[in-house]
Amino acid sequence: MTKNKKKIINDPVYGFINIPANIIYDVISHPYFQRLRRIKQLGLSDYVYPGATHTRFEHVVGATHLMHSALDVLKFKKIKISKDERYGAMLAILMHDLGHGPYSHTLEGFFAQGISHEDISLLFMEKINEDLDGRISVGIEIFKNKYERHFLHSLVSGQLDMDRLDYLRRDSFFSGVSEGVIGSDRIIKMLNVKDNELVVEEKGIYSVEKFLIARRIMYWQVYLHKTVVAAELMLLKILERAREIIQNREIFTTPALHYFLKNKITRIHFTDSEIALKQFAILDDSDILASLKQWSSDEDKVLSMLCKRLLDRDLFKLEIQMQPFDETMISDITKKTAEHFHLSEHDVRYFVFSDKISNKAYTTDRASGINILLKNGELRDIAQASDISNITTLSETVKKYVLIYPKEIESQRIRS
Amino acid sequence: MTKNKKKIINDPVYGFINIPANIIYDVISHPYFQRLRRIKQLGLSDYVYPGATHTRFEHVVGATHLMHSALDVLKFKKIKISKDERYGAMLAILMHDLGHGPYSHTLEGFFAQGISHEDISLLFMEKINEDLDGRISVGIEIFKNKYERHFLHSLVSGQLDMDRLDYLRRDSFFSGVSEGVIGSDRIIKMLNVKDNELVVEEKGIYSVEKFLIARRIMYWQVYLHKTVVAAELMLLKILERAREIIQNREIFTTPALHYFLKNKITRIHFTDSEIALKQFAILDDSDILASLKQWSSDEDKVLSMLCKRLLDRDLFKLEIQMQPFDETMISDITKKTAEHFHLSEHDVRYFVFSDKISNKAYTTDRASGINILLKNGELRDIAQASDISNITTLSETVKKYVLIYPKEIESQRIRS
Amino acid sequence: MTKNKKKIINDPVYGFINIPANIIYDVISHPYFQRLRRIKQLGLSDYVYPGATHTRFEHVVGATHLMHSALDVLKFKKIKISKDERYGAMLAILMHDLGHGPYSHTLEGFFAQGISHEDISLLFMEKINEDLDGRISVGIEIFKNKYERHFLHSLVSGQLDMDRLDYLRRDSFFSGVSEGVIGSDRIIKMLNVKDNELVVEEKGIYSVEKFLIARRIMYWQVYLHKTVVAAELMLLKILERAREIIQNREIFTTPALHYFLKNKITRIHFTDSEIALKQFAILDDSDILASLKQWSSDEDKVLSMLCKRLLDRDLFKLEIQMQPFDETMISDITKKTAEHFHLSEHDVRYFVFSDKISNKAYTTDRASGINILLKNGELRDIAQASDISNITTLSETVKKYVLIYPKEIESQRIRS
Amino acid sequence: MTKNKKKIINDPVYGFINIPANIIYDVISHPYFQRLRRIKQLGLSDYVYPGATHTRFEHVVGATHLMHSALDVLKFKKIKISKDERYGAMLAILMHDLGHGPYSHTLEGFFAQGISHEDISLLFMEKINEDLDGRISVGIEIFKNKYERHFLHSLVSGQLDMDRLDYLRRDSFFSGVSEGVIGSDRIIKMLNVKDNELVVEEKGIYSVEKFLIARRIMYWQVYLHKTVVAAELMLLKILERAREIIQNREIFTTPALHYFLKNKITRIHFTDSEIALKQFAILDDSDILASLKQWSSDEDKVLSMLCKRLLDRDLFKLEIQMQPFDETMISDITKKTAEHFHLSEHDVRYFVFSDKISNKAYTTDRASGINILLKNGELRDIAQASDISNITTLSETVKKYVLIYPKEIESQRIRS
Repeated sequence: MTKNKKKIINDPVYGFINIPANIIYDVISHPYFQRLRRIKQLGLSDYVYPGATHTRFEHVVGATHLMHSALDVLKFKKIKISKDERYGAMLAILMHDLGHGPYSHTLEGFFAQGISHEDISLLFMEKINEDLDGRISVGIEIFKNKYERHFLHSLVSGQLDMDRLDYLRRDSFFSGVSEGVIGSDRIIKMLNVKDNELVVEEKGIYSVEKFLIARRIMYWQVYLHKTVVAAELMLLKILERAREIIQNREIFTTPALHYFLKNKITRIHFTDSEIALKQFAILDDSDILASLKQWSSDEDKVLSMLCKRLLDRDLFKLEIQMQPFDETMISDITKKTAEHFHLSEHDVRYFVFSDKISNKAYTTDRASGINILLKNGELRDIAQASDISNITTLSETVKKYVLIYPKEIESQRIRS
Repeated sequence: MTKNKKKIINDPVYGFINIPANIIYDVISHPYFQRLRRIKQLGLSDYVYPGATHTRFEHVVGATHLMHSALDVLKFKKIKISKDERYGAMLAILMHDLGHGPYSHTLEGFFAQGISHEDISLLFMEKINEDLDGRISVGIEIFKNKYERHFLHSLVSGQLDMDRLDYLRRDSFFSGVSEGVIGSDRIIKMLNVKDNELVVEEKGIYSVEKFLIARRIMYWQVYLHKTVVAAELMLLKILERAREIIQNREIFTTPALHYFLKNKITRIHFTDSEIALKQFAILDDSDILASLKQWSSDEDKVLSMLCKRLLDRDLFKLEIQMQPFDETMISDITKKTAEHFHLSEHDVRYFVFSDKISNKAYTTDRASGINILLKNGELRDIAQASDISNITTLSETVKKYVLIYPKEIESQRIRS
Repeated sequence: MTKNKKKIINDPVYGFINIPANIIYDVISHPYFQRLRRIKQLGLSDYVYPGATHTRFEHVVGATHLMHSALDVLKFKKIKISKDERYGAMLAILMHDLGHGPYSHTLEGFFAQGISHEDISLLFMEKINEDLDGRISVGIEIFKNKYERHFLHSLVSGQLDMDRLDYLRRDSFFSGVSEGVIGSDRIIKMLNVKDNELVVEEKGIYSVEKFLIARRIMYWQVYLHKTVVAAELMLLKILERAREIIQNREIFTTPALHYFLKNKITRIHFTDSEIALKQFAILDDSDILASLKQWSSDEDKVLSMLCKRLLDRDLFKLEIQMQPFDETMISDITKKTAEHFHLSEHDVRYFVFSDKISNKAYTTDRASGINILLKNGELRDIAQASDISNITTLSETVKKYVLIYPKEIESQRIRS
Repeated sequence: MTKNKKKIINDPVYGFINIPANIIYDVISHPYFQRLRRIKQLGLSDYVYPGATHTRFEHVVGATHLMHSALDVLKFKKIKISKDERYGAMLAILMHDLGHGPYSHTLEGFFAQGISHEDISLLFMEKINEDLDGRISVGIEIFKNKYERHFLHSLVSGQLDMDRLDYLRRDSFFSGVSEGVIGSDRIIKMLNVKDNELVVEEKGIYSVEKFLIARRIMYWQVYLHKTVVAAELMLLKILERAREIIQNREIFTTPALHYFLKNKITRIHFTDSEIALKQFAILDDSDILASLKQWSSDEDKVLSMLCKRLLDRDLFKLEIQMQPFDETMISDITKKTAEHFHLSEHDVRYFVFSDKISNKAYTTDRASGINILLKNGELRDIAQASDISNITTLSETVKKYVLIYPKEIESQRIRS
């Protein structure tokens, strides 16, 4: 009684997506995977782009679809890829985001210390592999970059991986920021493999340039939009406050969230027992929202005000600049805020704070550049191949400083 | 210090949406309105169409944008519309969905009896009107159909209102079901007013036909898709079970949900005190999800199994037909299910049940037909004006019967 | 030295189109095929829809792409299709429009009598087959419906063939009439073969309904749009006048057009010698336009006025109704026109004339209905399977009467 | 009896385009304007991108639509613009391409020497102005940059004018090269006026960068695509050959083309008499095509071979590089070609030739850079404001060298 699991998924971005193999279907059906339906891809970005409510579930299914296309292109170009490798690469991209928690880019590091979302992804994969009798082992190898054919890993995680190609296009689509649209079809058509490395054929240079520019636009227009960052940092402060309170007094939370607030969870909790992972597997956006709503009428003024303002989108003011903010100015604003809201020196730090933001999450920890395969057969880095001299600056980490404080203080402020 | 509230909202469906007046902005900023960000437009439809995670917030902002266009078209055709009427009509459509609760089409009637979501919308509007010093009174009049210029109400609620024009297009966009796409631009261009009634000019007939067909496709392909209905009915059973349990034993719920589970809430609770409305204003999708996750490990087997299966998308089988299901067959399946899962006669009803579904929610309670304004100045109903003889059957309520039971029973079943 | 002819064509409608085999490439490269680049798909429709300048070339390449998809779907559903059949079906659709001349829907029958464009397509195919050493024979068999597997022919020419699926979508795309958009992807996904016949699976019913409605919208909104018809009938009158003049006096024409104006060409000229076919192979839109421009300053007042007005889009008035026009009215208008322009009784017939138009070109001569494959395995015609009772009226030939006369006469006219 | 000329044009790119004033309608109706329907926007680009058959007519109507939007945005930002200025700017952009002849980018300079297409546009405008009793004088002033409010001219012709915004988007749409898509909506929303100059607000920087990249992509991927350039240069050679022949022997041409082939037309013919302008007004793509087809069987071997190959898309080989081609190599190829085709030294130059191509047509002769209006009120050039250091190189003229010769010679060639 083997069920035919060749399914079709309707996707607004690509149209129909085929599930080409039972193993793909089985992973999608796994509870750890279904959980991604309950985690929005872009956290609080829908506060600025109301359409951007899409989930990590859609993203990874989309990225898997692009992987399918990319492998077809390579096959067409006579690169031999076995069935195991084919499904392995698709599984690796399908599962690469399993370890994300709610509002991940903001809250990564809050729930557990010393363990990245990639580490957690891997723990989930290993669990799923147990449940599926080791059928996804090749996928895990590729994900871990232990598989000998390195270009497969580059398709999962690299400067031009299917992750990025999907999220730029998808985030663009749902946010309505058309500048982020990239010609993922064309980039994929230009992929090739040379000496076991993923390369882009020469005539794809322009598309790669456009991709880099589009990514840059998406950082500053969507991912790191001032209002989005303000909302996300408020959320972080809320959870820090809740954690502070809960050490002394119980407040309403969902049980899974309670676990991560009450205890100081580190890598060891994930690796030495299964409890942390099990609790993490339960956690999603609804834990945060359901708790926030309750906290908005909590007796703790700091907690309740922050929650109420975040829920009602009555956000704090955010200033942004390339240099650190002047300490005198910060303490001036802090003092005014403390007075205005009758807050102690300790508590006012939840209302006024400075932070650094960067596009790091999107750019670093990915080893190499983008290799262009010239018509004469040579390889050249995009930095040399493009005649935009500093094209690679587009990939660099840009750090900016932000200062956050209640809007009420703004009008009182004397600009220095 | 009057703030300029002329804002622009990025919408993936229409591009840029202008907020043309402070009063529109003020309503959007109200907490009762912001709450709509936390309620998905299509409930559990994203179980079939993963992109369909858009919210009621986006929908009503989009519908208000269409209203803006429609009023511009009428103005171009020399229909006099005052500023108050203009903003009134926009406010009416903006607020018409305020009374929706989480998973509304399924759960309407579950939280409170004897009161519709339109009634609750009105209660919310009146509260907002108090907060805004009566500045939205004309909008409320138009919503209630008490305003003398009847065509304005028809634009809010009628056979061709801006609500429908937006949701068909938007649901189509996010689900990826291109058959639901309608030429809302063209229909709007064809609108006119004759004798105080909204009419469509003759050359718009084909577009109206296409609109009716597209709506029909969306019912059966999206809104009433088998899998979606199965998931939604499972959700309803879950909440019924939780309500049953909670009368005797406390289980984890968010406080707002607790209020509606523990108590039997009716219209009078909404109208005679403010508590019900306040609790309802807190309720959103996250209350349901956060509770479901906890219940999936509850000691009550019925509750936990239903929750686990719904969360993991391991749904019950749903059969659908035009006639009621045969009683013998139902009791046969019921018996087998009870045996298989060791359930009592009472409890098995949560696993096997029949129900009626219809497209009623989308078609009825809207007074009149669609009037076509012929070139010679006469009015004719679309039923006469179209040469598809029974075009109006497309608007009729279609009732179908569904039978739901665990998939495990399927293979045991002897088909009659 | 075998050249790799696997090419990719950029198509704005479908994105990238693969040319999967050398034989497809060879046919596309043939001069008879390249000629289709010079014939617009929609004749004078760009007078109303300026974007609709796409050519027959693009259309047939697009239809071939859909054929490719459809055959993939059938293969996925375990219908055995050999390589010869695969390419045969693709070639048949690729070449099915070879016999179209310039402004085909209007001028069909003008250049040659007793021979249809399908007949001419076949003659061209046979020539190409000679040039390609018989490699397209299977394609010709399928085109002629002589091939035993009948469903292949149905994909080329039937109620739901790839021709229609492409032209509706493409004409919609280029004209900007979004109501004509069809979900061709979904229809193709629903195709199947039962007893050697092409069928649509039950859940495709709604898409088929939408397709029929969309087709109807395209007839009346684009193909038979009043202004388009007026322009096309003026073009026909121009060529009739030119033919009349050229019997007595030489006027400027391109040589190929001259051949068809000066001589009375019938089927026998095509079949018994090669001259007619050769001349026809030269003829395209540019012959018409180049001649018209010259004629617009011809000494013959009828010819020059008609040409000048058509070129400048200063079109005659067109009235349309379901019944024949009243003879008295026509003769009244005729008389007034003759007076106003000082025209003889003979010549005025080029300025005032009545005609019939119908959607015939799009609907008839295609044998059968659309078969729906019910879930229980039975076949049913869409007419029975759809619950829109008279859905098939959408496919019927509708005849309308038009009356054309100069706008100058309009104001003088007393309406009866 | 004033006719209401408020019309709506269906455009596949923008949807509905309103004609907001009679004077716009009157210009569109003028024969000199209607002629643009018969000139393709991208010449022979449809040889590579079959969808790119759109005309100059659509382009200028689209650009006028963008002008309308841009003026609305400026009005919203409190820039006073009178009705005359409003329609003036729209008329200027509407008419700016009137002076283009067939296959303009290739053949500019062939038909007449010492006069640019802008000069001819102006001559046409002046004629139209006479016909319309001086009602478009302000538009002409703006076009000529004689109108005091300089930003209006910048909207017509500048680094970020409505011409470019439309053609990039439109050419992208019709060619299917999605990398060329630009967020014209967002750029327009960011426009402002400062000190009588058109500026872009700071937050529009990313969109401007994307615009510059997209433009660059379109040059090399579409406008200067190798195959397109090969075809266009072959066309130029054909016309040069025809001109050479026609000095001694009459060959078939349309009369308008004959005028420009037989005579050596210069600026003075356009300015001192009306004949040249009248003949030019007749000339369009059909003259070229109709003549080419006839010439393809001419007795002159050079002419007939070139024509046949161009018509059948059997194009010459084109090599491209940054440096001039080696003279020895060219003479080697020339010699081989002369032998292979039995051509004289004179005639072989039509088969083998080198040329320079550049993106000049799209970049130069536009005075100034793009000014960014910083949040602090200062102006800065995009070159400083962008942190892509050499962003302006994107606008520089890039010169490349091409070498063209028959494919037959390729295989014989020894690569150096």
